[in-house]
Amino acid sequence: MQTIKIALLGFGTVGQGVFQILNEKKEEFRNFFGIDVEVVGVLIRDVEKLRPLPAHLFVTDRFEDIASIPDVDVVFEAIVGEEPAYSYLTYFLERGIHVITANKAMFAKHGLSLQKVAENYDATIGYEATTAGGVPIIKTLKNLLQVNEVENIAGILNGTSNFILSEMRTAKCTFEEALQNAQDFGYAEADPTDDVSGKDAFRKLMILSQLAFGRQPSWEDVEVRGIQTLTLRDIEEAEESGMRYRHVAEVNITGSGNLQAVVRPLLVGPSHPLYTVDGVDNAIVIDSEYLGKLTLIGPGAGRFPTGSAMVEDFVQVISSKPKVIIPQ
Amino acid sequence: MQTIKIALLGFGTVGQGVFQILNEKKEEFRNFFGIDVEVVGVLIRDVEKLRPLPAHLFVTDRFEDIASIPDVDVVFEAIVGEEPAYSYLTYFLERGIHVITANKAMFAKHGLSLQKVAENYDATIGYEATTAGGVPIIKTLKNLLQVNEVENIAGILNGTSNFILSEMRTAKCTFEEALQNAQDFGYAEADPTDDVSGKDAFRKLMILSQLAFGRQPSWEDVEVRGIQTLTLRDIEEAEESGMRYRHVAEVNITGSGNLQAVVRPLLVGPSHPLYTVDGVDNAIVIDSEYLGKLTLIGPGAGRFPTGSAMVEDFVQVISSKPKVIIPQ
Repeated sequence: MQTIKIALLGFGTVGQGVFQILNEKKEEFRNFFGIDVEVVGVLIRDVEKLRPLPAHLFVTDRFEDIASIPDVDVVFEAIVGEEPAYSYLTYFLERGIHVITANKAMFAKHGLSLQKVAENYDATIGYEATTAGGVPIIKTLKNLLQVNEVENIAGILNGTSNFILSEMRTAKCTFEEALQNAQDFGYAEADPTDDVSGKDAFRKLMILSQLAFGRQPSWEDVEVRGIQTLTLRDIEEAEESGMRYRHVAEVNITGSGNLQAVVRPLLVGPSHPLYTVDGVDNAIVIDSEYLGKLTLIGPGAGRFPTGSAMVEDFVQVISSKPKVIIPQ
Repeated sequence: MQTIKIALLGFGTVGQGVFQILNEKKEEFRNFFGIDVEVVGVLIRDVEKLRPLPAHLFVTDRFEDIASIPDVDVVFEAIVGEEPAYSYLTYFLERGIHVITANKAMFAKHGLSLQKVAENYDATIGYEATTAGGVPIIKTLKNLLQVNEVENIAGILNGTSNFILSEMRTAKCTFEEALQNAQDFGYAEADPTDDVSGKDAFRKLMILSQLAFGRQPSWEDVEVRGIQTLTLRDIEEAEESGMRYRHVAEVNITGSGNLQAVVRPLLVGPSHPLYTVDGVDNAIVIDSEYLGKLTLIGPGAGRFPTGSAMVEDFVQVISSKPKVIIPQ
């Protein structure tokens, strides 16, 4: 039986989710795809930090160690920030090694360039997990685009800010209190700036724009407003008039082919598909040519939803790429 | 350039949608897939009925005429009822011809058998359009199942009955008046029995069960209750307590591996993902192992949404099957 060799870059929440799912599904990979899946190395930043790791697993903080493992088939990347992730993934793709990433900051900026490198070297780059965690928005958009032109995409793309807005409304607390709750639940980072300012949602929106329209608007032209300025009074007034604030990222194409994008708090009523989307969920509404309005709602982050999205990308890779041959 | 020859069985709303989309996307098929798409024949029931047809199109009411067209690559089927559809599709699959169907009554009963025939003859059967029209529930479930076990599926699978419940609530009218409105808008057939009784939703639920769990519960064990008995007073009382009736079809697997399925009016509150789903939309909530709860909402019927779903299946066929070779 063929063995597919996997390297993991990053072993935080998402990396650990991928590792666990790959292990739990070993038997299924054998039975349904006729392959053995083996994690041959894990790149981490801090070798002193305690992690739930099996003793036999090769773990290193040196990229060279991972790069020198022979015959790696697929690399999963779940580290944070543009660099060194971008350089690492370029390195692997240029060697024809398939890459699956969850790194939105990196992919929003370098996605197009990486996709070109992948194409040139007959490799694949999977990026379902960069946007909306477990919600299969990338796959759904790709399928839909084979027949439909997309006109508008609007979504709640950041679970932390959506949790804060939900919490302010239901627990009747201030932004600061809601943020504290989000941190206590593990839904917000120690530094939540990117989440509440809309920057994180903006990045994901740019990834969706790239896919749906083949390009992004100029970043400096996109108005990005966060939720920090919303007071409990604002939320209560909205509630009294039967409306809810949602932090909505939106991109659409005008009749003349220009892209318009914005991230901002938006008041929506009970008939709006984003009205019931509470807590850390993400949601995306796609308007397209023949299909009309399609809405997807689900977990926008988390170890297993995001891990599952990455492993789905992996299944795509092993099923379709001639380089990794599946005996049928 | 290679020509893909297509036959259409049925030329009602959905068949006409497929025909129009295939025509409008001719250029894209050439540019992106390197193929010419040609509809070589259309099977209809009544040759006297007026239809929006180009004069050069070969139209017949005799199956033998369609069956004798040489080198058909793909057959789209959008006729109603189990027979003769089942026999027709078996005929084509046994000749290695790919089939794409929107026929839920037929597929709920014969889907498994047709999939086996397809496998034996190295053909494909696409059935995205059988369930929830333009909502890509089949594709989404297939992808998700590659990594996740599904635990529960609950959905609004019939747009007509959902429209009637929405209409009763918003227009404060009786079931009979709402049904009349549905018929006036073209959302309900002259005989709406299958829609309002839950029979149509039941069939789609069985298709989803087959896919998610590899089998269906015994049909006679499934409780199927319609919406005909709901009075305006019931709807109003629900509204007063902040709830809404939805006609929900649900199937789940128990710890011991038994399937439980039911179709019935269900009261849901504002935090439920089906609460905001009004009008003719369909919606499905999937609970699965790693991904958690994923909700899809969109048009459950209609010429273009359903036609688009079928043409997406077609793209799948021409991209993946060796029999229909795409020059890259």
